[in-house]
Amino acid sequence: MPVIELHLIEGYDIDTKARLGRGLTDAVRAVLPADPEAVTVLTHEVSAAGYMRGGQNRSPAPALPDPVKTVRDFLRAMEARDLDRAAGFLSEGFEMTFPGGVRMTRLDELIAWSKPRYARIAKTYTGFDTAMTEGGPVVICRGTLAGAWPGGTAFEGIRFVDRFELRAGKLWRQEVWNDMGEARLGEAQS
Amino acid sequence: MPVIELHLIEGYDIDTKARLGRGLTDAVRAVLPADPEAVTVLTHEVSAAGYMRGGQNRSPAPALPDPVKTVRDFLRAMEARDLDRAAGFLSEGFEMTFPGGVRMTRLDELIAWSKPRYARIAKTYTGFDTAMTEGGPVVICRGTLAGAWPGGTAFEGIRFVDRFELRAGKLWRQEVWNDMGEARLGEAQS
Amino acid sequence: MPVIELHLIEGYDIDTKARLGRGLTDAVRAVLPADPEAVTVLTHEVSAAGYMRGGQNRSPAPALPDPVKTVRDFLRAMEARDLDRAAGFLSEGFEMTFPGGVRMTRLDELIAWSKPRYARIAKTYTGFDTAMTEGGPVVICRGTLAGAWPGGTAFEGIRFVDRFELRAGKLWRQEVWNDMGEARLGEAQS
Amino acid sequence: MPVIELHLIEGYDIDTKARLGRGLTDAVRAVLPADPEAVTVLTHEVSAAGYMRGGQNRSPAPALPDPVKTVRDFLRAMEARDLDRAAGFLSEGFEMTFPGGVRMTRLDELIAWSKPRYARIAKTYTGFDTAMTEGGPVVICRGTLAGAWPGGTAFEGIRFVDRFELRAGKLWRQEVWNDMGEARLGEAQS
Amino acid sequence: MPVIELHLIEGYDIDTKARLGRGLTDAVRAVLPADPEAVTVLTHEVSAAGYMRGGQNRSPAPALPDPVKTVRDFLRAMEARDLDRAAGFLSEGFEMTFPGGVRMTRLDELIAWSKPRYARIAKTYTGFDTAMTEGGPVVICRGTLAGAWPGGTAFEGIRFVDRFELRAGKLWRQEVWNDMGEARLGEAQS
Amino acid sequence: MPVIELHLIEGYDIDTKARLGRGLTDAVRAVLPADPEAVTVLTHEVSAAGYMRGGQNRSPAPALPDPVKTVRDFLRAMEARDLDRAAGFLSEGFEMTFPGGVRMTRLDELIAWSKPRYARIAKTYTGFDTAMTEGGPVVICRGTLAGAWPGGTAFEGIRFVDRFELRAGKLWRQEVWNDMGEARLGEAQS
Repeated sequence: MPVIELHLIEGYDIDTKARLGRGLTDAVRAVLPADPEAVTVLTHEVSAAGYMRGGQNRSPAPALPDPVKTVRDFLRAMEARDLDRAAGFLSEGFEMTFPGGVRMTRLDELIAWSKPRYARIAKTYTGFDTAMTEGGPVVICRGTLAGAWPGGTAFEGIRFVDRFELRAGKLWRQEVWNDMGEARLGEAQS
Repeated sequence: MPVIELHLIEGYDIDTKARLGRGLTDAVRAVLPADPEAVTVLTHEVSAAGYMRGGQNRSPAPALPDPVKTVRDFLRAMEARDLDRAAGFLSEGFEMTFPGGVRMTRLDELIAWSKPRYARIAKTYTGFDTAMTEGGPVVICRGTLAGAWPGGTAFEGIRFVDRFELRAGKLWRQEVWNDMGEARLGEAQS
Repeated sequence: MPVIELHLIEGYDIDTKARLGRGLTDAVRAVLPADPEAVTVLTHEVSAAGYMRGGQNRSPAPALPDPVKTVRDFLRAMEARDLDRAAGFLSEGFEMTFPGGVRMTRLDELIAWSKPRYARIAKTYTGFDTAMTEGGPVVICRGTLAGAWPGGTAFEGIRFVDRFELRAGKLWRQEVWNDMGEARLGEAQS
Repeated sequence: MPVIELHLIEGYDIDTKARLGRGLTDAVRAVLPADPEAVTVLTHEVSAAGYMRGGQNRSPAPALPDPVKTVRDFLRAMEARDLDRAAGFLSEGFEMTFPGGVRMTRLDELIAWSKPRYARIAKTYTGFDTAMTEGGPVVICRGTLAGAWPGGTAFEGIRFVDRFELRAGKLWRQEVWNDMGEARLGEAQS
Repeated sequence: MPVIELHLIEGYDIDTKARLGRGLTDAVRAVLPADPEAVTVLTHEVSAAGYMRGGQNRSPAPALPDPVKTVRDFLRAMEARDLDRAAGFLSEGFEMTFPGGVRMTRLDELIAWSKPRYARIAKTYTGFDTAMTEGGPVVICRGTLAGAWPGGTAFEGIRFVDRFELRAGKLWRQEVWNDMGEARLGEAQS
Repeated sequence: MPVIELHLIEGYDIDTKARLGRGLTDAVRAVLPADPEAVTVLTHEVSAAGYMRGGQNRSPAPALPDPVKTVRDFLRAMEARDLDRAAGFLSEGFEMTFPGGVRMTRLDELIAWSKPRYARIAKTYTGFDTAMTEGGPVVICRGTLAGAWPGGTAFEGIRFVDRFELRAGKLWRQEVWNDMGEARLGEAQS
């Protein structure tokens, strides 16, 4: 039933308006059990001259990149071992925490750390969630891992979840959980 | 810079309006790098007689429970082994997936499954994220586990993350990842 | 798809808001082929102190009576030959035009005129249409007449239509067309 | 006193916006005795990307044709005996009811039926009313008929009223009442 | 032609809403030559829970006192030589400039300064203007002075103008101009 | 905290929108002690076809000239003794009142009147206030005069204030107060 009106300074592109519209729809539907068809978003665009705060016109800030796209692009670059490209998605102060609570800050550390753990790895995604915190958006991506153990045996279907915090459109925190410990434990016990 | 107007049928309580306002603010801030101070939400409440869709007045649906509160209450009941109370938070068709990809649908199955894994367990929360999907809200809670192995040795600081999907205010899916496999592997190898 | 916001000074009753909401919905649907479910009306009520035109607060005028109800009540009074009550629905300058182009201004004239035409008469309504003109609303009611000719023979199913113009909530013009001429012609020719 | 805001997806032409504006003004004035000068309509046009229902952008449906224009064009074609053109204004399932309750569905039936009733006929219009029903708009047109009886005697000033129901921009029902029975009765009795 | 919507947190009294409405009407009419009747102000009041900036609810600040009333009350107190009451209208840092460019900060200084200039004095007001500056409102009051010279001769009709700047509802600057110099000059030259 | 929405027919230039926005911001801040940053103005522009009052589209009236600019331009022309240009800023019925209550209607009268008072004069401006009255805007400008007495002695720093009323964008009343009487009195007494 709710109607949401969003007032923006004109100039945002179609994709940004769509992201805003979906986000506002979701925000309402997280609280009210409204039939999606009944949630209407109207985005009003005022001219830059027609917007004033504190008696002064303002320039609209460029939209942030889509956080899911940022995460996907980063993970694709990592999978391709294109560390330069991957590093371009990281904000200053980036920190990652991997299974066992291992903290690292550089991508080459991660590569070194993973070497004794698996020979190769690829991700299949089940889904991406985007949440919002006071500091910025959070992306949770989950799915399964396939690859080969250092000894060459293949594995697949190992569940994982990655949680990314973004700051100003860049990745700032990555936390990783997965069932590789369980899998290796199973292997060790077999 | 954006102003958001939300039009509701009157009758929602203060907490619901606050949840809506924060959700809308977050939805905008996930896309636009606006200074929080510059995001204004105005919630207009129209009388039931003053709202019409398709030429007909509508009754406002009761707000959904706060999904984070639902998750917290469920986890607290589980920790207290109050399975009856915990079951009250579950929707029909509830399914949970635990480390190793173990799928269960009943809480007593879970209790049975965990018995050989640990003697007791308690969660400390680092944070909760709320995302929205087409089907409904998703809550991701993360933190650390403390407890004792079946042999009695204590453990603590083991990272975990739980992902809950809600349907109509109830828990519908639970997925759990944690570092217990890593920890047990470490223990087994020591 | 359209959303209509109506801003009123507070104080109108539920029925008035419903009539306004339906009228606005119909007005849009007369022009746009929108699914009724997709036409939303939001009626915002501002306090009398919060409404100003030309720098001055205004008092909201009382709503006009429902024109269909006025027509129904007038026709019921006429059928009951309660001319006093019926006259209460007429505005100054009321004029009626009956089949054959007969113009009258007083209800007793009408009674006298109808005497040689039928012994008694009753209306069954098929429907009421409400249109709007610059001067005010127009009600068109149609249906069938049943009764008895002066000689006592019964008749029924004779089609009629009445068109009423209202001014300031009162009936100002009545125009009547029906198939009684056809029926009498048929009788005369039989 | 009322202010009406209409929110549309951009793209409608000037004439459509004028029809919407007048319709909304009339809808309010049918209920509230507001000075016309005090009824303001503001039509806000949002970009297609800025409108969302159920989280999805929508395409604006083309406006329906002006129902009065449709009726006028149909009647002009009938008067010119251009049955092909006239038939183009009819929806599937069209049905007409003429004086005496005669029901027809094809325009050539009507021509055949009218042949013994008059030799030629032309309409002069007094006015058109547009009402709205749940099914669609209704046009009531009234005026006088002039022409010649089958025997060649001219007649004029015979009152008529036509009521048209439209569906999806086409004529679906036509009901006709007039004083021709009265006139023929007068002639027969003279 | 313009319509102004003002969104406030609910709770302001009628007088405050009227002052806001008149101020907004005047602000538009200073720029657009609109017929006053055509300038509409709608004041929407949202509940405190329904207003959020930066994701946080806010308390509405109490309205400032009417600056014209403040000036009138101050001048009345001065005329009655009620310096205590008059001082209550002054903000910290108050400064006044009188004819000849005489600057003073205390009301008793003013009394002392004026003693050799006139024996008594009273103001008749022609009008009050209220302007707005970045620092706060400004009130300009003008009219005529009547009284008696130190020698006892009466005078009247001497033009004056006072300009007051207010800060946070208190008087912060007073500037006075009048024709007393001209009058005394005339007297001296006569 | 307040949000102001202004609805205009599209077509006003950037400067007009800025003047409107600042005027509306000031109007609110004269009544509510809001942090300037918290006062937002949104100017919505509807197409000419999308605006209707009394069921009729309207043409937007051209904006009035900026009254401060009009006053500045008039005073500059006067200072340059360009009476023709200065007269172009005056409305029919213009009247000015100078120190001592001297009323004049023609600029050459003023020149004649001032001749015995000073040999030359120039204004330095401290500030301009713009107020609004029912009749139109009022500009108050104040500052100091510098020049030479008829005998040739220079003067400077003499305080003045001018109050202008405008009608339809032209100057209609000018009232002048200054300390020249005080200064001449001082000179006479010295």
